[in-house]
Amino acid sequence: MSQPVFSSHAFAPFLDRLADAASHAIMPHFRQGFDIDNKWETGFDPVTVADKNGETAMRELINSAHPEHGILGEEHGPENLDAEHVWVLDPIDGTRAFITGLPTWGTLIGLSTDGKPSLGMMVQPYIGERFGGDCSTAWYRGPLGTNQIRTRSCAQLEEATIFTTTPALFNDAERPAYDRVEAKVQLSRYGTDCYAYCMVAAGHGDAVIEAGLQAYDIVALVPIIEGAGGVVTTWTGGAPSEGGQIVASGDPRLHDIILRELAKG
Amino acid sequence: MSQPVFSSHAFAPFLDRLADAASHAIMPHFRQGFDIDNKWETGFDPVTVADKNGETAMRELINSAHPEHGILGEEHGPENLDAEHVWVLDPIDGTRAFITGLPTWGTLIGLSTDGKPSLGMMVQPYIGERFGGDCSTAWYRGPLGTNQIRTRSCAQLEEATIFTTTPALFNDAERPAYDRVEAKVQLSRYGTDCYAYCMVAAGHGDAVIEAGLQAYDIVALVPIIEGAGGVVTTWTGGAPSEGGQIVASGDPRLHDIILRELAKG
Repeated sequence: MSQPVFSSHAFAPFLDRLADAASHAIMPHFRQGFDIDNKWETGFDPVTVADKNGETAMRELINSAHPEHGILGEEHGPENLDAEHVWVLDPIDGTRAFITGLPTWGTLIGLSTDGKPSLGMMVQPYIGERFGGDCSTAWYRGPLGTNQIRTRSCAQLEEATIFTTTPALFNDAERPAYDRVEAKVQLSRYGTDCYAYCMVAAGHGDAVIEAGLQAYDIVALVPIIEGAGGVVTTWTGGAPSEGGQIVASGDPRLHDIILRELAKG
Repeated sequence: MSQPVFSSHAFAPFLDRLADAASHAIMPHFRQGFDIDNKWETGFDPVTVADKNGETAMRELINSAHPEHGILGEEHGPENLDAEHVWVLDPIDGTRAFITGLPTWGTLIGLSTDGKPSLGMMVQPYIGERFGGDCSTAWYRGPLGTNQIRTRSCAQLEEATIFTTTPALFNDAERPAYDRVEAKVQLSRYGTDCYAYCMVAAGHGDAVIEAGLQAYDIVALVPIIEGAGGVVTTWTGGAPSEGGQIVASGDPRLHDIILRELAKG
């Protein structure tokens, strides 16, 4: 794919190189038939192999091109986290989608600059889709072409479409708060992992509500949502870059309403 | 796309022409930004437009090429249902995925011959994927190439991955039966509509359990599942072509176990 046309961020072209490297390492493992007995009896796990290979490919490229940068990944140990620029990597977000052949998993590649998410991409290599953002703009490249993306307006819970991975992931304190929001919205969808954030960024949904996230689950997505006009915070309105309880909304007015609703009770 | 290479069914090439026509009619409406206010206040509904246009395109092609064939569709009235060959059409299966931008909806095109499903296809035009079957073989064409597909072996509930659209669709009598099965499986996934049947056919999952289906929700999928080595029946083991309560399994041994579990209580 060509370089992104919507971002002047210094590392935007490098972001695409990382996406290429990860896709090349991961795709040979997607939808490869394996007898389920093999998986569970011998410990062979194609997800782990794809995850590790994807992260290794990205780490090698970063270490080679930008040895002064730090790296925080899901699969291998942290490197140089005090650096100005730290890459935050999740080679396969949505492992349950990956192992069941569904196309809603993604590779998350984020760049944190001076401790704050500054650039990010969600890569879906099976479809050939990339959603990128640099906090001031966001873009899509895929089967429908190359476009800038924007969130849509939605100022009322009653008109909102929300996403969450599964309500079963919320703990006993979080679940009633989430359920209050879900009871008021027009449509809720489960099981979409990182793909949901991109649908909010591109204006096909209104919010994602999750909990228990790691930094590598969210850092790459913040510049996409913010670049598209949305907002991402913790449930209490704090900075999202450490993960935890996260709300991402396309319309800042809806975001305020969701935070208030989550805080009730 | 070229004609399927795995089927000698007389209408297999025509199936691809129908898929082309439906995709051409539907795709202009996928992920087209519309203000959510427009949708709900003026009654404008892009799903309905795409649905109607997709079915109209397929009907015109059938009426032109095979005027003696019958047609049963979701959007328009039945035509000539007593014919030897009846096409069974659902232009967009998974409307909630469609309206939220997710790539897990599909166009279902089935052919019923002498009252029995004989040929079928699930088309995902955004990804560029087609899953087809003629009851004796099944095939995939898409980003990974063109391949024959086979179900995988799985003879125990405890090792099974199952799919359902959402447990909320089951009625009070069905829900405990479904829950008994789900409690014993290794992994359950929701919200995947017709895409789930293709994942079972291609060996990435083991069963789909649903209820309240229409004929046009299932006729196209039966030749794919059966052609890949799986089995589709009602919950009581009857013919699936009228819809209702449906189980589709990749391994006939698992199918028997699921039917027995559903019948308990």
